[in-house]
Amino acid sequence: RIDGARLWDGLMAMARHGATPKGGVKRLTLTAEDRAAREDFRTQCEALGLAVRVDAIGNMFARREGRDPTRLPVLFGSHLDSQPSGGKYDGALGVMAGLEVMRTLHDLGLTTEAPLELVNWTDEEGSRFGHSLMGSGAWAGVYPLEKVYALRDGDGVTVAEALDAIGYRGEIPAEPFPADAYFELHIEQGPILERDGAAIGIVTGAQAQVWWDARITGQDAHAGTTPPGARRDALVAAARIIALVDARMRDAGEEGRGTVGFLKVEPNSRNVIPGEVAFSIEFRHPESGRIAHLASHFPAEAAADVAATGCALSMSQVLHYAAQPFDAACVALVEQAAARLGLKARRLVSGAGHDAVYVARRMPAAMIFTPCKDGLSHNEAESIEPAQAEAGCQVLFEAVVARANR
Amino acid sequence: RIDGARLWDGLMAMARHGATPKGGVKRLTLTAEDRAAREDFRTQCEALGLAVRVDAIGNMFARREGRDPTRLPVLFGSHLDSQPSGGKYDGALGVMAGLEVMRTLHDLGLTTEAPLELVNWTDEEGSRFGHSLMGSGAWAGVYPLEKVYALRDGDGVTVAEALDAIGYRGEIPAEPFPADAYFELHIEQGPILERDGAAIGIVTGAQAQVWWDARITGQDAHAGTTPPGARRDALVAAARIIALVDARMRDAGEEGRGTVGFLKVEPNSRNVIPGEVAFSIEFRHPESGRIAHLASHFPAEAAADVAATGCALSMSQVLHYAAQPFDAACVALVEQAAARLGLKARRLVSGAGHDAVYVARRMPAAMIFTPCKDGLSHNEAESIEPAQAEAGCQVLFEAVVARANR
Ligand SMILES: NC(=O)NCCC(=O)O
Ligand SMILES: NC(=O)NCCC(=O)O
Repeated sequence: RIDGARLWDGLMAMARHGATPKGGVKRLTLTAEDRAAREDFRTQCEALGLAVRVDAIGNMFARREGRDPTRLPVLFGSHLDSQPSGGKYDGALGVMAGLEVMRTLHDLGLTTEAPLELVNWTDEEGSRFGHSLMGSGAWAGVYPLEKVYALRDGDGVTVAEALDAIGYRGEIPAEPFPADAYFELHIEQGPILERDGAAIGIVTGAQAQVWWDARITGQDAHAGTTPPGARRDALVAAARIIALVDARMRDAGEEGRGTVGFLKVEPNSRNVIPGEVAFSIEFRHPESGRIAHLASHFPAEAAADVAATGCALSMSQVLHYAAQPFDAACVALVEQAAARLGLKARRLVSGAGHDAVYVARRMPAAMIFTPCKDGLSHNEAESIEPAQAEAGCQVLFEAVVARANR
Repeated sequence: RIDGARLWDGLMAMARHGATPKGGVKRLTLTAEDRAAREDFRTQCEALGLAVRVDAIGNMFARREGRDPTRLPVLFGSHLDSQPSGGKYDGALGVMAGLEVMRTLHDLGLTTEAPLELVNWTDEEGSRFGHSLMGSGAWAGVYPLEKVYALRDGDGVTVAEALDAIGYRGEIPAEPFPADAYFELHIEQGPILERDGAAIGIVTGAQAQVWWDARITGQDAHAGTTPPGARRDALVAAARIIALVDARMRDAGEEGRGTVGFLKVEPNSRNVIPGEVAFSIEFRHPESGRIAHLASHFPAEAAADVAATGCALSMSQVLHYAAQPFDAACVALVEQAAARLGLKARRLVSGAGHDAVYVARRMPAAMIFTPCKDGLSHNEAESIEPAQAEAGCQVLFEAVVARANR
């Protein structure tokens, strides 16, 4: 069995990189804090005799050889980057649990049939460069590497520059190598497991998503002298779109998701009518058809709504993917592991995007969820219990070993 | 007569301090650019033999002695600070025209009966520290100096620190000294003069205003996992208030003004439901009663609207002043000067706040407006014609000399 206390200590130690006063983590991808987390991870891997490789987008792979040199490796892992005000467990749980799996095998002197590879994916969150699942997306060939290299953060720094700045533009190509399967443990980041009193979520897939960058252009003007009829207030127009996103989310019922999470006003001076507002829009739903409909119809609906204010709207699509089902055999391995361990489990669809979504396009994949307090995530108050982490890690161990030894 | 070409050259030279690529000016108060403008102004004043004094809030007074030592000085001027994306004329016109008045008297070898003082007020715009008319307000005793010193910009720098950083916390107290009257020339920043084909606006007063700092608190949460019913989205709540401000402005008809010019989202990450939004709210109207009504009723109305979203609103009042009428005798001097010069003029109420509003609480005051293209201001494209600047400067000259020699 894995060592729950050791796993917890590892999680707490990792949470020091980018720790915030409110008990959360600010460890944006490819920053100094991310580099510190990566170095820590690498050191721990090498101490277990794992061979660490870094690819051209900074994804890290730590390999443990198997008994059978003809077998393809079983991959597992998650991500060490965080939101700007994120929690200690989103991503880090999957990586540190993976390390605990490796450590347990090491301590037991066990060698699996197939090799194992523990992965730390680059930029899962997407907060810095605007693209979530960036590292796994580049690796899986969803995004061309040159396009990803050219993405810029809010300060104008490109992904390529940021990789070089922390020394993590690696030697091996960012592309799928032959592998047998991928498993990822992650906190649910939602309320379902806690509500149902389940210790383990058997994740059957992830929901469909569409994301846009939007920009509304009006005209800067004096707040005190410009009469109502002469105003082209980009923020008044943006407020209509924020309301429209919320309304379309609610139209889709309890499973609907629609969010404007990022918004920036220009010139952002209190006595100037805003001339420009840049913001993000996203919708999610388990049914791909609903998201496809929004992807094709929402931009025109929003543009018409903005036109009524005398402003203009432009929207450029950042990502759009259909619901991604996971591999039935891998999902079954997770389900069997939970059952063998006597853990209460339920099937569910992931509300969040995960690296497993893109990896699943290249090989059989599955995910394991564990509950988090009040379903709260992307928040510094994100919280889990040591026993919940331990249960998830044990299921990961069983599923990975079962797959590698099959 | 004043020299229009020289005035224009002076304006263009001043516009180099903080010049932007789009032809505007970014010269936020108490920055390096503001300091350069101040030094330039001081040098030009001293070259004319004027004695320059700086008060404790950085207001600059350049004095020209009169013939009669018992007479109180006649003041005139405006401000050299700008909006973050401001124009070349907002404020600078009044200061540079004042310098041209001094220069013309100097060239003609004329001494007025009363002394003259040309003023450059600190932080008229209010964009950096959130308080417009800050220097004149502190000077007039509207704001206690210690409170003003403690105001902070977006980077946490206080007014006191910013004054010291550019060496403009002056020797003399920031308080009214005995003076006879104040005149201010400014661009209208609105469409009325241009529409009516008038060269000169006889400003009879300024409209009432109320400003608040507002903050909405919801809860950061994951955009993909948090169901509609569990969301407390501070940006969705803020969008309602932006729409409400716009609606209340429109209720007040053509003379209504209501603006959210500044807004900041936390954590401002595209896949995080915003947990906090800070923003500004302002209303203006020529009728003080309407603004007083909003000052007392709007916060409760807005709070009720926000409560429906599960978020909470707090509002703190930044300023509230009634309509300020200007002095009838000073207004008449402006009107007579325009008539004598054969310039088409009309009376109007200022839509913008001006230093003259606070100065008028301490001494007789009046203002002169000149048109600007399309009424556009607080915009880098702000534009005026040299002949318009010259006409305004000539009226300023006549009014100031008439008052000083009466
Ligand atoms: N797991 C997670 O929070 N991923 C970020 C991508 C998303 O927005 O779903
Ligand atoms: N003149 C001017 O633009 N002043 C700024 C203060 C205001 O918002 O009216």
